[in-house]
Amino acid sequence: MSTTSIQIHDSIESANEHERDFAHWQDKLPEAELESLLASLDAFSVAVPSWALATGGTRFGRFPGPGEPRNVYEKMEDVAVVHRLTGAAPRVSLHIPWDEPEDCGAVREFASNLGLGFDAVNSNTFQDNDILSYKYGSLCHTDPVVRMQAVEHNLHVIGVGEELGSESLTIWLGDGSNFPGQMHLRRSFEWTLRSMEAIVEQLPASWRLFTEHKPFEPAFYATVVQDWGSSLLLCQALGPQAECLVDLGHHLPNTNVELIVARLIGAGKLGGFHFNDSMYGDDDLTTGSIHPYQLFLIFNELVDATCDGALAAEPAYMIDQSHNLKDPIEALLQTVDMLQCAYAQALLVDREALNHYQQGNDALMAERTLQGAFRSDVRALAAEVRRRKGGALDPLSSFRDSGYRLLKTAERPTADYHPTSL
Amino acid sequence: MSTTSIQIHDSIESANEHERDFAHWQDKLPEAELESLLASLDAFSVAVPSWALATGGTRFGRFPGPGEPRNVYEKMEDVAVVHRLTGAAPRVSLHIPWDEPEDCGAVREFASNLGLGFDAVNSNTFQDNDILSYKYGSLCHTDPVVRMQAVEHNLHVIGVGEELGSESLTIWLGDGSNFPGQMHLRRSFEWTLRSMEAIVEQLPASWRLFTEHKPFEPAFYATVVQDWGSSLLLCQALGPQAECLVDLGHHLPNTNVELIVARLIGAGKLGGFHFNDSMYGDDDLTTGSIHPYQLFLIFNELVDATCDGALAAEPAYMIDQSHNLKDPIEALLQTVDMLQCAYAQALLVDREALNHYQQGNDALMAERTLQGAFRSDVRALAAEVRRRKGGALDPLSSFRDSGYRLLKTAERPTADYHPTSL
Amino acid sequence: MSTTSIQIHDSIESANEHERDFAHWQDKLPEAELESLLASLDAFSVAVPSWALATGGTRFGRFPGPGEPRNVYEKMEDVAVVHRLTGAAPRVSLHIPWDEPEDCGAVREFASNLGLGFDAVNSNTFQDNDILSYKYGSLCHTDPVVRMQAVEHNLHVIGVGEELGSESLTIWLGDGSNFPGQMHLRRSFEWTLRSMEAIVEQLPASWRLFTEHKPFEPAFYATVVQDWGSSLLLCQALGPQAECLVDLGHHLPNTNVELIVARLIGAGKLGGFHFNDSMYGDDDLTTGSIHPYQLFLIFNELVDATCDGALAAEPAYMIDQSHNLKDPIEALLQTVDMLQCAYAQALLVDREALNHYQQGNDALMAERTLQGAFRSDVRALAAEVRRRKGGALDPLSSFRDSGYRLLKTAERPTADYHPTSL
Amino acid sequence: MSTTSIQIHDSIESANEHERDFAHWQDKLPEAELESLLASLDAFSVAVPSWALATGGTRFGRFPGPGEPRNVYEKMEDVAVVHRLTGAAPRVSLHIPWDEPEDCGAVREFASNLGLGFDAVNSNTFQDNDILSYKYGSLCHTDPVVRMQAVEHNLHVIGVGEELGSESLTIWLGDGSNFPGQMHLRRSFEWTLRSMEAIVEQLPASWRLFTEHKPFEPAFYATVVQDWGSSLLLCQALGPQAECLVDLGHHLPNTNVELIVARLIGAGKLGGFHFNDSMYGDDDLTTGSIHPYQLFLIFNELVDATCDGALAAEPAYMIDQSHNLKDPIEALLQTVDMLQCAYAQALLVDREALNHYQQGNDALMAERTLQGAFRSDVRALAAEVRRRKGGALDPLSSFRDSGYRLLKTAERPTADYHPTSL
Repeated sequence: MSTTSIQIHDSIESANEHERDFAHWQDKLPEAELESLLASLDAFSVAVPSWALATGGTRFGRFPGPGEPRNVYEKMEDVAVVHRLTGAAPRVSLHIPWDEPEDCGAVREFASNLGLGFDAVNSNTFQDNDILSYKYGSLCHTDPVVRMQAVEHNLHVIGVGEELGSESLTIWLGDGSNFPGQMHLRRSFEWTLRSMEAIVEQLPASWRLFTEHKPFEPAFYATVVQDWGSSLLLCQALGPQAECLVDLGHHLPNTNVELIVARLIGAGKLGGFHFNDSMYGDDDLTTGSIHPYQLFLIFNELVDATCDGALAAEPAYMIDQSHNLKDPIEALLQTVDMLQCAYAQALLVDREALNHYQQGNDALMAERTLQGAFRSDVRALAAEVRRRKGGALDPLSSFRDSGYRLLKTAERPTADYHPTSL
Repeated sequence: MSTTSIQIHDSIESANEHERDFAHWQDKLPEAELESLLASLDAFSVAVPSWALATGGTRFGRFPGPGEPRNVYEKMEDVAVVHRLTGAAPRVSLHIPWDEPEDCGAVREFASNLGLGFDAVNSNTFQDNDILSYKYGSLCHTDPVVRMQAVEHNLHVIGVGEELGSESLTIWLGDGSNFPGQMHLRRSFEWTLRSMEAIVEQLPASWRLFTEHKPFEPAFYATVVQDWGSSLLLCQALGPQAECLVDLGHHLPNTNVELIVARLIGAGKLGGFHFNDSMYGDDDLTTGSIHPYQLFLIFNELVDATCDGALAAEPAYMIDQSHNLKDPIEALLQTVDMLQCAYAQALLVDREALNHYQQGNDALMAERTLQGAFRSDVRALAAEVRRRKGGALDPLSSFRDSGYRLLKTAERPTADYHPTSL
Repeated sequence: MSTTSIQIHDSIESANEHERDFAHWQDKLPEAELESLLASLDAFSVAVPSWALATGGTRFGRFPGPGEPRNVYEKMEDVAVVHRLTGAAPRVSLHIPWDEPEDCGAVREFASNLGLGFDAVNSNTFQDNDILSYKYGSLCHTDPVVRMQAVEHNLHVIGVGEELGSESLTIWLGDGSNFPGQMHLRRSFEWTLRSMEAIVEQLPASWRLFTEHKPFEPAFYATVVQDWGSSLLLCQALGPQAECLVDLGHHLPNTNVELIVARLIGAGKLGGFHFNDSMYGDDDLTTGSIHPYQLFLIFNELVDATCDGALAAEPAYMIDQSHNLKDPIEALLQTVDMLQCAYAQALLVDREALNHYQQGNDALMAERTLQGAFRSDVRALAAEVRRRKGGALDPLSSFRDSGYRLLKTAERPTADYHPTSL
Repeated sequence: MSTTSIQIHDSIESANEHERDFAHWQDKLPEAELESLLASLDAFSVAVPSWALATGGTRFGRFPGPGEPRNVYEKMEDVAVVHRLTGAAPRVSLHIPWDEPEDCGAVREFASNLGLGFDAVNSNTFQDNDILSYKYGSLCHTDPVVRMQAVEHNLHVIGVGEELGSESLTIWLGDGSNFPGQMHLRRSFEWTLRSMEAIVEQLPASWRLFTEHKPFEPAFYATVVQDWGSSLLLCQALGPQAECLVDLGHHLPNTNVELIVARLIGAGKLGGFHFNDSMYGDDDLTTGSIHPYQLFLIFNELVDATCDGALAAEPAYMIDQSHNLKDPIEALLQTVDMLQCAYAQALLVDREALNHYQQGNDALMAERTLQGAFRSDVRALAAEVRRRKGGALDPLSSFRDSGYRLLKTAERPTADYHPTSL
């Protein structure tokens, strides 16, 4: 296993730059404050889904890259590279059946040897993997036999998760309708709730169940769990183990996502995140690539709620992107850094000052307090945390210098790769 | 009082056309079915807000029309015309302080003589009507003295409503923030809830309280009650008298409004509607003028829920439009007809067939069942109901023929009217 | 060839209903006016793309239906059924290479025997069909060799079209970028224009070239031809053979599509339409299923421009839908009827009255003139036109009664079909 | 005149911080590169509209602040403060008739004494300022007399501008319609063009005319110049003096504004900007307050086009915000700093590297090149430029310390100010 042997290749130039930029931070912040911030940042980690390691696509096509992983083992190898270089990606989130292990024990041991664990398991009832079709829905289907099949699939996924050491189940549904009239809007929701109740009944006591809302795609008229309001209604009815998951791309145009995060925190039902970014729909772009300020504002709500104790448990953090054009490992390295930076910026916010200005309705100074944190160049803080963990100052350069992708291209031949130039 | 003496002026031509078109319906539907539909339609009515009788405007300007009512008495006169011609607008919804009566008893008697009653009263804490400014919020304000002032205003409005015979209070808040950081997102919601609790405590036992959500305007970053999810959280906490009001224009782009209606029905919290239409934001256009199919689909949910008993009480129906370009009375006549037609179409839906196709996932036939009702030309049904009530087949023509506006233009001189041609 | 032998199965009941409803129209309209309207309606036809006959899907999955056509011959058979029952779908639009004929002469003869001809041919440079990848663009690619490959492909498609008797080429590009910085925004547009110039140079003199804009998908940050403005710039530079194509689903939220149609007519650059409907993005739903009033308003612009001579040539009409849940033939039958009805409604508009009210700024009466046409139940008019052509009053019932799909399910076995119930 | 005597009050602490942070930049960049960047930044300036100095409002209300300027002289005094503290706001853009000078010569001299000049003049045909009403349009009106009145008004505005030393006219139209059918979509555009031709005919040879597009508000169905495509059609027809103005808030949801900037540059028709920010519509929030990355990407296009010579003349830069909640002067100080920072970041982009990565389709490295510039903390660069000009390191603190607003509150009493706390 060559994976963990990937070398950190930070250049002298990049080390010097880091020293200069970190020294600037040492000038700017008192040591205790700086170290406390770095400690919080050090504690941050995010899960990587098994499907994020292969090139994604759209309904119009997929353009595979070289050296893609061909199975769950190779995918974990790739995650281990991300974790090795960032120190912040220690868990894999498996999708069943796409990455269902034949031998859970072997997979768990393999992961353990790579220093990896398992995050939430993900069920799939939006494709035809079973005997009966999910064309017209799964947990919401009009036919009780199809609903039962979908419930059974989720219970099976829980079983797999238990063998791997997971402690949560994420249910994202494609259920919905394309045309007015096709589906009874209230009954389909009621059936979904009943099906989920049957799943929660069998959920291990230590587990959490995450429901995920999405306004459209693959259903284009109405989805069953279209927004956080519907997700909340489900989780209220399902009890304390059920919580709402926020995918950053699952919102209508102009949605204030940080406000939804605040509302879910207030309702005690924020379960976690699927990180990505989007400009139009569920574009699944690199986190922070389109709306970096929004990402910061979301972390600001999380830090704020941690400070005042409103956030009982830490939310589950997971990346959920489709890497259509970028090398998946590179995109993940970039994403982890982006998350570390957004979190660092949120930690920099002077909460006492912010609170003071909010209380006095000094809108400009309150805003400026947030902007001051966001405008700060925190790349050296994230780099320093990685460095101290034994990761890379510049994970991307280390990765490119390592020759890992080239090596894997030889090891993992694929038939469908077209060159972009001769 | 000349108002109620407005004459019905249906022309012979229009009477003949009606006879022909209604006869076509008599051919199409069995008599019992037709009469049952007409009876349901006959029972439908909608409230008119006092501010709908004057020309509305935007922040860029207002173009007053001739003969605008100058006080609450003249506004009621105008509502009486709408009711006289349609038979379906028997209630006025007063806005306090814009149309606060000096003498409630006199106003109530005046209304009663016109055959009118009073619907929900509306409070206003989005403008500076009190000693302290609402610039930075009202029920959500950081300063408890401002919150108390806003609560007191609402209690005052309830008092006015009791004198008039109203039985509900609608709270629409402008509260929110324009910039990230300006307002603490969770605390401002919490304060809003506490303020509303203080109001509900004093709400008469027979009253209902309606909360209204809106994503933006006048606040352009975050509103306190931004969507139905937040509105639901409030109403769940406030108890059985509190219900959610749906303004058709208070949604983000691409929102499936009928789905929200279905969810609120399912949650037992649908309180009522503010009818209008919009293409971009809270445009407050004539109901059904932009998305007539959506209006039908909303009524379809209401009829469906009435049929299966999911709708405990009838929702409160109110028009809430800004008549910037049309004569307000004419726009209201058009609106009432549009609502009657949408309701008639929803009543036409063959629910047994729809249910059958939905159950069997025959998407096309289910959709076609709805479309068949929507494509039906129901104008003669609405006209027939009006005719039987003593209203007009064609309210607009009757109104124009009546010379009412001209008469009022003489009676109600205004200084700021510019002609559109010389 | 059993296709054209599909029988018209209009029931006596449906014939009686038609007679009743059409008689109502005969009462309503003077005979000359009615016949003139029917003649216009009779002249309307729409092209069907070869990809519309198979079940579509999303990136999350595809749920195949039974009896799907497996090649271009079977697809034409299915189109012939649509044409047989509606009398308004006489042309097929081929996609190259998905449905590239091995023997164009044979395919042309086959089509001719079915009474079908060929509409625009469609090139595909959004997938990897060639030696070099289009992952990073085609006509806009930074590498001149890839651009040349894409140009050559288009020239090849023109060649195929010439053999089939097509007279236009539609270029829809997936070209664009997912991330700020990825693509030089001006240079990529410039290269696209240069590539298109190379194509137009070789375009047969009698041909038209259609450029199609789309704001996103598969590119999620910036597309090269993102809106009608960019499409117009291309067509202005490309000369008189180039015109803009409007796909109803290729617009940002809240776009006024009929206004774009009006602007393109005014600029002399409206080439044609890809008909579908959408609620969120390029949903490719059945035309008129979500925004039927918008569809009518688009036809209203077309009829209006025909009346005042602003529309030099008739636009190219094509259906472009993804039939994910409905039987494709059924969806097409529904679509053709929907188009016929929208056109009939637009023909019903009293243009003289409309013009009069517009000129006098009588907003309400002008709107009511349009609404009067839209609210009319024109299904009997479309049915009458089909009847006179030898098509079906109710194409869908005829199709279902025919047993065609069942027959084809036996003839065209597929491996990947899952039942939705046992 | 006490205005220009406003003192720079940078604290020692803030001077020390600046020294530290600017030294960091001196470490990071070679001196020549740094000085070149500062020189470009020094050359940047932006115009302030006369209406930006008073508190703005929405259709729901306006909450005036203390010490608002009451006339054009007081407004210029306030602009002079902004210019004094930032060194980058040397021009006023007058709105006619809101701020029409009675004595242009006196106003011009007053401005000159304050070190201010005049930018574009703005006409107003969206309110009733003339004899005939603009309720149903101005340049597009169906009545030629109203169109002539609107043309005359614009010619009058040009005359005022000539007396003041302005060299451009900005035409923003409220023209449009609220309902389908109300306005003939093509004719209203044609009339607008004809009216503008009449204006351009009289435009002084050295002047530029800017057309501004906007999708909605105050018209809520269709505007006459709804997007850059329509604006482009007008400017193409009007000739070389006419150019398109981009208001950042005048776009549909999800619009890629930097792409429109690129297209207008490519078409040779980019005239200038109205800077602000928005989350939902034409929210007129502080520039960069919602989408700071977008602001950077727009400046990136401008710098890029300057580098390759695509931008013939410098665009006209103007702030166009509505200061509803913030002190207008404070909001403008914040805005100028935000613009300086965004421009500094765009100047920091390594264009050679970016070009290299774009050419090789290295999406991640190209993006990272942009992100590197955006993530840089450039506040010290903007401050240094201000310092060298004799402005403030921290304009806001200087302003607050100056007591200017308090002084003006005494000098400029208003009746309608409510306190926010007692």
